[in-house]
Amino acid sequence: MEGYFITFEGPDGAGKTTVISEVVKALQAQTSREILVTREPGGSKIAESIRDIILDPANTEMDDKTEALLYAASRAQHVSEIINPALAAGKIVISDRFVDSSLAYQGKGRGLGIDEVAQINAFATGHLEPQLTVFLDIEPEIGLKRISKERAGQEDRLEQEKLAFHQLVYRGYQEVVKAHPDRIKVVDARQDLSQVVKASVKLIKSTFPAAFK
Amino acid sequence: MEGYFITFEGPDGAGKTTVISEVVKALQAQTSREILVTREPGGSKIAESIRDIILDPANTEMDDKTEALLYAASRAQHVSEIINPALAAGKIVISDRFVDSSLAYQGKGRGLGIDEVAQINAFATGHLEPQLTVFLDIEPEIGLKRISKERAGQEDRLEQEKLAFHQLVYRGYQEVVKAHPDRIKVVDARQDLSQVVKASVKLIKSTFPAAFK
Repeated sequence: MEGYFITFEGPDGAGKTTVISEVVKALQAQTSREILVTREPGGSKIAESIRDIILDPANTEMDDKTEALLYAASRAQHVSEIINPALAAGKIVISDRFVDSSLAYQGKGRGLGIDEVAQINAFATGHLEPQLTVFLDIEPEIGLKRISKERAGQEDRLEQEKLAFHQLVYRGYQEVVKAHPDRIKVVDARQDLSQVVKASVKLIKSTFPAAFK
Repeated sequence: MEGYFITFEGPDGAGKTTVISEVVKALQAQTSREILVTREPGGSKIAESIRDIILDPANTEMDDKTEALLYAASRAQHVSEIINPALAAGKIVISDRFVDSSLAYQGKGRGLGIDEVAQINAFATGHLEPQLTVFLDIEPEIGLKRISKERAGQEDRLEQEKLAFHQLVYRGYQEVVKAHPDRIKVVDARQDLSQVVKASVKLIKSTFPAAFK
């Protein structure tokens, strides 16, 4: 891997997308490397078709294992078509969610088991792991309130899940964070946006000092 | 499991669909149990949407791992929506292809590894295994000739693969058959249809003597 692979994780409503966008603005001027921001399905046509099936609110009868395997399938395509080529070209790749999301949502939230879902995803990604994961930490109660303000009635199938599910997901994240203290760094996402961005930028720069001025 | 779970496997052009249809005609009069014939995606709406992505000849850039995970996802849905409920209701379930197809096509044909693909599928099926698998044995050269006569120019993405791929698949099947001699029984599919059907019916009746008159 010639490039740098960074992921952002967190419960729904943690503000990942906004934070990433601001972080990239801040970092872009300080590096000669190209920064690629991606999120599953990452602009891959096949991965997008897969994601349409996963998130369709009409697919209420979807088996939990089907859901986990579809995420893994979409991720395999995202890695092979988008992430791996960018890393091979030396880019800084920042992904909005990656394997840890599946560990929290499907492994813990759906009760499939974090280890079982990790195994499926190791196959899917060819054991690719981020060098740094920023976990935007926010209680699901607060995160969900943010979301329901932003897109009332437009939530996708997973966002529509009840609070109890999102609380499980949060506990899943906490287990994953605890299991990977070297890779995953926690940022308090209840702070002001500017503070969250500042903390994230600091983490990235200190993890990859050679990549930034 | 209250019912009986039987699968038919074999290379493209082995005649599985026709053989199954004739086998069911022969068995139906000899049992009081309902026989459910199914094939992936098995009439499950979600599994069908998944299969559309897999077989779309336009999806030429599909990663091999994506393909394997999509088959597993479709299978998970097929098992939970169709097969498990039928078995719980005491039915005889006959499936046209199941996990062994993925071991041969993705594990061996695509080179992903039979054990790796088996692991993904054990997750997908919740470790469900057929009690009997009838392997319709035919060299890929002969099977492919049959297919090209039947639907010239209408082959799906996997049928379009070159002979070398189908030869690998066949070797994969041979490895799987060898590894499961108790479950998988071989029928020579180069014989006349009536002989193939007769041999298959005999295998099924001798494996489940209590289910048939």
